Amino acid sequence: MNIHHRNLRRVVIIGGGFGGLEAAKALRKASVRITLLDRQNHHLFQPLLYQVASAALSPADIAEPLRHILRHQENAEVILSEAQSIDVANKRVLTADGPVEYDYLIVAAGARHSYFGRDEWEKFAPGLKSLDDALEIRRRMLMAFEVAEKTQDDAEREAAMTFVVVGGGPTGVEMAGAVAEIAHVTLIKDFRHIDSSQARVFLIESGPEILQAFSGDLPVRGLKQLTSLGVEVRLNKKVEAISETGVTLTGGEIIASKTIVWAAGNAASPLGASLGVPLDRQGRVIVQEDCSIPGHPEVFVIGDQAHFATGEGRALPGLSPVAMQQGRHVAKNIAALLRGESTARFEYFDKGIMATIGRHAAVAEMGSLRLSGFVAWLAWLFIHIIFLVGFRNRFAVLFNWAYAYVTFGRGARIITRRHSGSGGVAEPPKQ
Amino acid sequence: MNIHHRNLRRVVIIGGGFGGLEAAKALRKASVRITLLDRQNHHLFQPLLYQVASAALSPADIAEPLRHILRHQENAEVILSEAQSIDVANKRVLTADGPVEYDYLIVAAGARHSYFGRDEWEKFAPGLKSLDDALEIRRRMLMAFEVAEKTQDDAEREAAMTFVVVGGGPTGVEMAGAVAEIAHVTLIKDFRHIDSSQARVFLIESGPEILQAFSGDLPVRGLKQLTSLGVEVRLNKKVEAISETGVTLTGGEIIASKTIVWAAGNAASPLGASLGVPLDRQGRVIVQEDCSIPGHPEVFVIGDQAHFATGEGRALPGLSPVAMQQGRHVAKNIAALLRGESTARFEYFDKGIMATIGRHAAVAEMGSLRLSGFVAWLAWLFIHIIFLVGFRNRFAVLFNWAYAYVTFGRGARIITRRHSGSGGVAEPPKQ
Repeated sequence: MNIHHRNLRRVVIIGGGFGGLEAAKALRKASVRITLLDRQNHHLFQPLLYQVASAALSPADIAEPLRHILRHQENAEVILSEAQSIDVANKRVLTADGPVEYDYLIVAAGARHSYFGRDEWEKFAPGLKSLDDALEIRRRMLMAFEVAEKTQDDAEREAAMTFVVVGGGPTGVEMAGAVAEIAHVTLIKDFRHIDSSQARVFLIESGPEILQAFSGDLPVRGLKQLTSLGVEVRLNKKVEAISETGVTLTGGEIIASKTIVWAAGNAASPLGASLGVPLDRQGRVIVQEDCSIPGHPEVFVIGDQAHFATGEGRALPGLSPVAMQQGRHVAKNIAALLRGESTARFEYFDKGIMATIGRHAAVAEMGSLRLSGFVAWLAWLFIHIIFLVGFRNRFAVLFNWAYAYVTFGRGARIITRRHSGSGGVAEPPKQ
Repeated sequence: MNIHHRNLRRVVIIGGGFGGLEAAKALRKASVRITLLDRQNHHLFQPLLYQVASAALSPADIAEPLRHILRHQENAEVILSEAQSIDVANKRVLTADGPVEYDYLIVAAGARHSYFGRDEWEKFAPGLKSLDDALEIRRRMLMAFEVAEKTQDDAEREAAMTFVVVGGGPTGVEMAGAVAEIAHVTLIKDFRHIDSSQARVFLIESGPEILQAFSGDLPVRGLKQLTSLGVEVRLNKKVEAISETGVTLTGGEIIASKTIVWAAGNAASPLGASLGVPLDRQGRVIVQEDCSIPGHPEVFVIGDQAHFATGEGRALPGLSPVAMQQGRHVAKNIAALLRGESTARFEYFDKGIMATIGRHAAVAEMGSLRLSGFVAWLAWLFIHIIFLVGFRNRFAVLFNWAYAYVTFGRGARIITRRHSGSGGVAEPPKQ
């Protein structure tokens, strides 16, 4: 079958992330027409995004064009467009390029970072969800050292050499560890007027511990590993204010900083609201046992955008294994519906969680198995390479890592910016 | 010695390209303080820039941070800033960050593309000099195919699938060949509603032949190789007008195109004008036999920014070997002046020229030796890998090429743009 057989039922998938892509692949043998909608042209391996932000990897190392991934799957097409809302009554998705009609819909638009209603903070403290986010954070970080090297003003130099990461989850911990490593090791010989090892890196966590998703002593071990990298961790501190001059914490502490990264809090894609069904506090769509929504057995919501209840008011976490398993599951459910059969309940198989801390430490938890330190880092490396989409990427990433590991180098310390016009001097970030 | 010995003479180098960087390296043993000024943080291996524009390589593959290259050279510092003008009377360079004083000055700010007074064409037809240029061209090229896949309008589809490269020099030929290869080979399976092999690629040359820098039958052979890739070459055609809808040629031919690349004509950096000495028609500083300027033995101009007369009103071409040899030569001249000796005349050792055409053809000329086809391509590959700065880059590039060569793939087909805000859909280029 291929995309041009108009008589086939049409499955529209919104989002080419882990969930949406798995769903599309799992439907490759189904006699349907699949339309994958995404506002980016690539699938992004988000777990390694902090490596792009910290200049260890290039965008192409962790991203693969969606068309390329699906090029041999004749029943699938990719449309680069942003879904604006969903009209469940008329079974169509409204996009910037007009309506797209569906017989079955899989909503997998993911989540963005949430500023808890303080969206004005975003320009001072960008989050880390897209390649553009990562390149912007990389640019700010590298420019901060350039400003520090140039300035005659002690206060400006100190602010330029102070980095703040907000949020003590895996992303925040990974980012803080990487920044500390860059400042204290990678750049050590690059400057003449500053000592990059004097740079300060702060991690702000509102809770009593970092890496709260981990159990046992892993949060404590993670904290030890992170502080041993020189990261100054502030626990039980909320961010009161963020401005171009820095961050103000509960209790009044002010950290003057030019480079702030936001890794706290997620909000599901606003697209879910247009479904007209209950959402949770993070804006996630509360789905039924088969991942469909109430009253619309033909509409499924998966991944970071879905609230799949696990009892005690809890929901499955926003992890790629959850999204991928749900993607495959709803594909099966759609196939069942096509056969006139009923759908099945989704069961999550917990593969565990891990977070890396700097260049040779990590924490990992798989069932009752808890690892930390170098062994956990190796496990982390192995699993992430295995799951990285695309042969080329796997090798390019392995090569870049091996190189960075041996040399402490960061191969991608290149500052670029679009529309440089005459290629003029890269200014410090407009803030 | 190191940069903090204030009693040492100060050598300021403007531009971290081939010429400026070679000069800095050649002065590593001289008892001077070297300040390398550049508006970018990286040295760019420009001969491979078209590979970034055509999505075969990532920016980090062909660029290396200047600080990193010079990190072990204690008598050198790097300042990321744009030189605005030169005050030869008071021996200082005026920059965005204030004046920088020098005892000796090496001006190596290079060239930009020239629109022959029609600068309004730049937004429709960007040139290819910086990484930002290359990423913008890549984005426009990839977006054009996305637009073609989506549109219902035949005229819009045709314009989106038509690519125009202006200028039949090596850069234009290399870019046109790469675009043809992408359309006719790489993307062949990626789309469902268009046949990318139907894309048309035009190369516009105002002269009677392409690759005019080459002698004998090489221009003709290059033309054959290029047309065999499906590129439609227009000779003896000037560009009369460029707009968002396309290009108008002398004789009235109108080519409707959404993606136009400018590879015609160079203009030296305007910085040269502030030296107050004669310039040639391209704005290059007409230098003396030792590469210094009249009346100022302490000021040298090299590379694309210099007009070094070779007799019959001709000047040395804007090639990296010229810039690198001049860089080393003026370093020697400065060392001589420091010893109270006189400077020496610059002699260019011609290593030859080459241009690649698609993935397995090229033309190369070394003295009386003329190569074309696959042999020339191998020579081109070998020489470019050898001269590529940085161990890591060499391996990364070799790997990416080997992969692209075997698979016809283009690993870096990733569309990114800064400040995507909510990561919204990438629009077609604003024109």
